[in-house]
Parts: sequence; structure tokens; C-alpha cells
Amino acid sequence: MKFIEGGLKNVSGFKFSAIKCGIRYENRLDYSLIASDNPCNASGVFTTNRVCAAPVKLCRERINGKIKGILINATNANACTGEDGYKNAFKLTSDIASRLNEDSESVLMASTGIIGRQLPVEKMSASHGKLIENLSAGNGSLLANAIMTTDTYPKETCVSFTAGNCLYHIAGIAKGSGMIAPDMATLLAFIITDAPVSKSDLDLIFRSAIKKSLNSITIDGDMSTNDTAIILSPVSEKYLAEDDLKKFADVLDMVLLKLAELLVKDAEGATKFVKIIVKNAANDDDAKKIAKSVAQSLLVKTAFFGNDPNWGRIACAAGYSGAEITENRLSIYFSGMKILDNGLPLDYNKDELLKIISAKEFSITVDPGLGTGEAMIMTCDISYDYVKINAEYST
Amino acid sequence: MKFIEGGLKNVSGFKFSAIKCGIRYENRLDYSLIASDNPCNASGVFTTNRVCAAPVKLCRERINGKIKGILINATNANACTGEDGYKNAFKLTSDIASRLNEDSESVLMASTGIIGRQLPVEKMSASHGKLIENLSAGNGSLLANAIMTTDTYPKETCVSFTAGNCLYHIAGIAKGSGMIAPDMATLLAFIITDAPVSKSDLDLIFRSAIKKSLNSITIDGDMSTNDTAIILSPVSEKYLAEDDLKKFADVLDMVLLKLAELLVKDAEGATKFVKIIVKNAANDDDAKKIAKSVAQSLLVKTAFFGNDPNWGRIACAAGYSGAEITENRLSIYFSGMKILDNGLPLDYNKDELLKIISAKEFSITVDPGLGTGEAMIMTCDISYDYVKINAEYST
Repeated sequence: MKFIEGGLKNVSGFKFSAIKCGIRYENRLDYSLIASDNPCNASGVFTTNRVCAAPVKLCRERINGKIKGILINATNANACTGEDGYKNAFKLTSDIASRLNEDSESVLMASTGIIGRQLPVEKMSASHGKLIENLSAGNGSLLANAIMTTDTYPKETCVSFTAGNCLYHIAGIAKGSGMIAPDMATLLAFIITDAPVSKSDLDLIFRSAIKKSLNSITIDGDMSTNDTAIILSPVSEKYLAEDDLKKFADVLDMVLLKLAELLVKDAEGATKFVKIIVKNAANDDDAKKIAKSVAQSLLVKTAFFGNDPNWGRIACAAGYSGAEITENRLSIYFSGMKILDNGLPLDYNKDELLKIISAKEFSITVDPGLGTGEAMIMTCDISYDYVKINAEYST
Repeated sequence: MKFIEGGLKNVSGFKFSAIKCGIRYENRLDYSLIASDNPCNASGVFTTNRVCAAPVKLCRERINGKIKGILINATNANACTGEDGYKNAFKLTSDIASRLNEDSESVLMASTGIIGRQLPVEKMSASHGKLIENLSAGNGSLLANAIMTTDTYPKETCVSFTAGNCLYHIAGIAKGSGMIAPDMATLLAFIITDAPVSKSDLDLIFRSAIKKSLNSITIDGDMSTNDTAIILSPVSEKYLAEDDLKKFADVLDMVLLKLAELLVKDAEGATKFVKIIVKNAANDDDAKKIAKSVAQSLLVKTAFFGNDPNWGRIACAAGYSGAEITENRLSIYFSGMKILDNGLPLDYNKDELLKIISAKEFSITVDPGLGTGEAMIMTCDISYDYVKINAEYST
């Protein structure tokens, strides 16, 4: 299994299209379509926000059917748009499905952008002819661009692997975990594969992979109304079994971890990429709580930005995480260098520590010394630019 | 009942002292003492952080006894200092108690400052003579200064009231909810009164008042290892009863709400004071969850700073709060002006809205339309200066 150049276009059986529809702004790619030659099994992970966008509601209803395509728009979230918002998503996907001669239920939709405005449905429908006309296997990278909001670069990756005598691929694109702008950004990720995996296996493997990757990153702790991750795998008479499935799962982990890393590194205003590793927590849930608490602490994140190896803020965030913490068993490391040992600070080398925390990438390990629970979260610092980007945008 | 000038010094039966001990820095007030002429009933609310400072442990053990004094130091938190840290707090309070000819258990302690360093016990003990010598009823305002860390002004207030034929006072000082610096800031609040309240009534009333005030403010969501709020009321043969107790509780609310407001207004880098009001939530717990989620959202707080009436971010934060939210019943107001009505945005007056959010103080009301649950949290915006203050401090 290895990373290969080219992203989505490596995956046979899919075509892509992205156009400038002028949904909110003129002259930017904002409307795209992933179309599969064959029916696909699909699996999806969506926002748990109680306020969720119309396309998320639509996806939840359709995700267990056979899927032929995903319609994606940027610059308008179609969230807080009531029944009309839902009807619009329904209408747009039905029209695409009918043009593809497919069941109206076979097309999913995802949106990102400003909240509380209706989609310009007429304009969008009028562009459907062009959207379908442009479908081509080579257009994958165009999509990685078309779904961006405040992202400063497109995020696309592909890993190939062999199973039996066949060469398979898993490729994905993602956008916008930097949160916000144009109004409320969203984490969107679309994964396609030419490896045939049954619906039930796909659900299990995708959920597990998302948990370790896209659900293990945090930029500012806010959860959007539109967060959506979808995987498509062709329906087949013969699905991958046992050993090959394990390989598939490993490759999917690689793809999603890569996308997660690209997202964190492109977080708004971020200057550092930091892995928060928790080991020896009372259990995995506690480990996750601690990792999340440290990764989301504003005091910890501003200390990263200021090159301040402030382990006190880390101990403090672990302490209020809700996880079991016994002060005199708590240890903390900066990139493997132990700073706090069973609750007491060590006489560490200050120059060496400063070198670690001044780097663009490092890790923090929190060891509560209470069990075998583990977790890892990828995060970033909070800089002046984060405040600037999120304060200066005006609704 | 009314606010009066002069703070702590209005409360008869107490003396105060604050000196420059040089605990971490030369030439700043850093060591203080509140001494009561008579034994007091005491009540305390402390950090729920699992990593808690030595003085907090000491207070928890002593708070139910008769209290004669509170020893307070700034610039060193005495947290993550292990058994030695506890022994040091024990030793210092014992020495003060013995110099006052009191039981060693009758003196409480509170600390704020850098984490992970032992207190300079010899230096501090050596200053105890001077600390006690300086005790005077007029020194109250000195204490409000001596406990500051990044606070830009001292926080002190006093309310007087009559009960029966007596004139009583409740006065308080507080510091540092701006969080951080010199290393990890702390919320400290000390309240004294000349109104005699029984221990059991004091516990009930103080807890309830703290919940509505100091536990209803949020600056950055981080909870320190040292957070401490203590109230002292003289032991008496005749305690306030029924009606007078109700009056006492109302006055205590006034004092603590005033201190809470002063703390939020002085939050690091804050330019705005915002009340997040939740009404008609499914229940009070849900209301608190929503208020907290909105008040802690970085996206909401940076929008406040940027004068952006971004109701989408507010709806979103309510949605992921964990509280029951039904999108088509959710309404949002800016200082009484309705922006979102049952899940749908209204055609509001943009100029008027901009005027509201550009002001130094305003309120946000979130109405889930599901019950009678209520909550209020006072918060502030997040500015460039917040990042600057917290990034530039170096351990």
C-alpha cells in the first residue's frame, strides 16, 4: 500500500465535474458532482449538531440505498432554511438523478457556506446541463478546489493497494476544518474506492476510521451544522473478505489520517501542528476526554503559539477534563521529553525544551498512569490571525 | 440595601494586612492576611479540577471549623508541588495561627500564580511578624490590590442593609478571571460580613449565590487549579432568621454579581461585556448547557469582537451544546431584537442590529421554545490582545 499522485482520478468507475455557477460569488468554482458508473454502497458520518443543514437530513434518509452520485455546493450551507431548504435540496438532487436516468433517491447532497439563506435553485438547476456535460474521469482535482471555503490549498490524497490479484485505490478530498467563512465552515470529506466492500463492512470500517482521523482533530472546538463525510464503494457480486478487508481498513486509515493532517495544517491562522497523545488513562473514553480538553484549551493553544512550554496549563486542562486524574501519578512529555513526573516537575533542559516547542510540529504526551486507555488528537495553535480571520468576516 | 463606598473596611470585626514579601517579584504587594476579631462560620466553593493546589486541599479540610483568618499569596500557585507543597501551606498557616494565639486549624490559605514551584517558605515565614503588625481595619483596599495578577484594576465592593434594628454589611474582593499570567490565573474571591449567619444557612446561601454569579461567568472556559471563593460570618448566639436571611441572600447576590461583572469586564484583552440569556429551554440544566456553549464558542466570541451579528454561529453553538434543540422552534434575539424566529431568519433592520453589536455591552437571548428552563452567563469577546497576553507570557 502506498500513496500515489493524482487523487480521485486514480479510482476507476467514477467521473467528476465542477463548475462556476455563481451561487453566492461570481467567478469561483462552487458547484460539483461526483458520479459513479455503477451503483455504490455508501456510508456516511454526519454532524451531531441538533441544528443540522437540509442536505444532511437528505443524506441521512438516503445513505442506506444504492448511491450513484453526490452533488456538492460551496458558499451556501442551506442550514436554518426550514422546509423550503429541504425541498430545494430534494429538487436539485432529483433533477440531477433524472438527467442521469437514475432513481431520485440515488443522489446525495452536501453544502457548505453561509447559514440562513435559501439556495438560488433556478440558477443552480439551469446549470445542471453543463454540470453533467462536464463529467470526466480526469476532473477529480477540480473538485478538491471547488469545495474549498477558507482553505488555502486543496486537500486530496490517494493510496493504492493490492488484494488478490487486483490493484485497488482509495482516494479522498476534504475541506475546511479551519472553521468559518464565508460564514460557518464545515468539514466535508468525500472518499471513493474501486474496491468492492459490502454495505455492512463499509459502515463498520468507515465509522472506525473516521473516529481515529476526522473525529480526532480539533481546531476551535466548534461543530458545524453541515459536517459530512461520505464513502462510496461499488456494488459487486464478490466483496472483499477477511484479510483483504483488514488491508482495506488500513488503507482507509492512511487516507483519512492524511486528510485530517492536511486539514489541521491548513487551520485558520495556525502556525503549528501538534499531536496530543494520551496513554495509560483509566480507559479509552477518559483518554479521549483528556486529549480533547488539552487540545481545546485556549490557554494551551495560545502557549503553543507563544513558544511557551507551559505544562501547568496542560496539567490543568487534564484536571478539568472530567476524566479520572490522580495528581501524584500524572506525567507530561513534550515530544518524548519528560517534564512532569508523577505530579512533580523535573529539572529539565530548558534550551532543549524551547527547541521542541519552537518547531512547527511536536507532540504532547499526557500519561495519567492509571490504566491502558489511549487516544490521539491532532490540533494546532491559536494565533492573532485566527482572531483576525474570524472577527473581520462580516455577515 | 445599597452599594456603599470603601469595600472591606466597612465590615466591623475584621482587620487586614498586605505586604511586599518578594515571593516571586520584588516590590509588589504579594502576601496578605484577613484576620477576624471573632471566630467565624465559613463557607467555601473550590475548583472542581482534579489537579488542585495545596491550599485548596487545606481549605477543604478546615472550612467546617471555626475560622479566624485567611492567608493569601499571589505570584505562586503552590500547585503541582506534591507533599512538600501541602506541608508548606500547613506550616505557614500554623505559624500565623500561633502568632495570633489561635488553633492552627483556624487559618485558611489561598494562592495564585505560577504552577509547579515551591513557595519560598523561609522568606514568607520571616515576613509574618510584619504581616501581623500591619493588621488594620483600614487596609481592606490594599488587599484588593495585593491579590491581583493580570487584573488591570482591583475589584472590591460593599453593600449595606438593615435587619431588625441593625445595620449590616457584606463586602468582597476578587481577582483574575481573565485567566493566566503570571502562569495560570485563578479566580479568588473573599467575602466578609458582620451579619451573623449560621454555618448551615451560610453554606446554602453562599453556594446558591456563587452558582448565579462566579459560576456563571466564562472568559476562556479554562478552570484553574486554585479557584477559591470563601465567605466569613461571625459566630453568634443569635443568628439571622427567616426574613432577614432572605434579605442577606439578596444582598450577597448583589455583591457577588457585582464582583462577577467586574471580573468579566476586566477579562484579558476583552472589549465587550455580553450577557447570554437562555429562556424557555426544556429545563434549567439544558438552559445552562446552551448558555455555556454559546459563551465559550470561539467563533461566537471572535464575531463579537468583529461587530458581526453572526446568529448562525450562535444557533450552531446551541445545536452542539448537548441540550434539547428543535430547529423549527429556536429563536434568537440581540438585545431584545428578534433575528431568528422558529428556525427561520427574519428580515431585520441591519443598521439597528449593527448598532447593538457595536456597543460595549449587549445581550444575546436564545429561546429554544421547549419549556421554562432559564440561565444567564456573563461573557466577553476574544480579541487580538487575548492571544497576545496569553502567548507572550513565557514560563
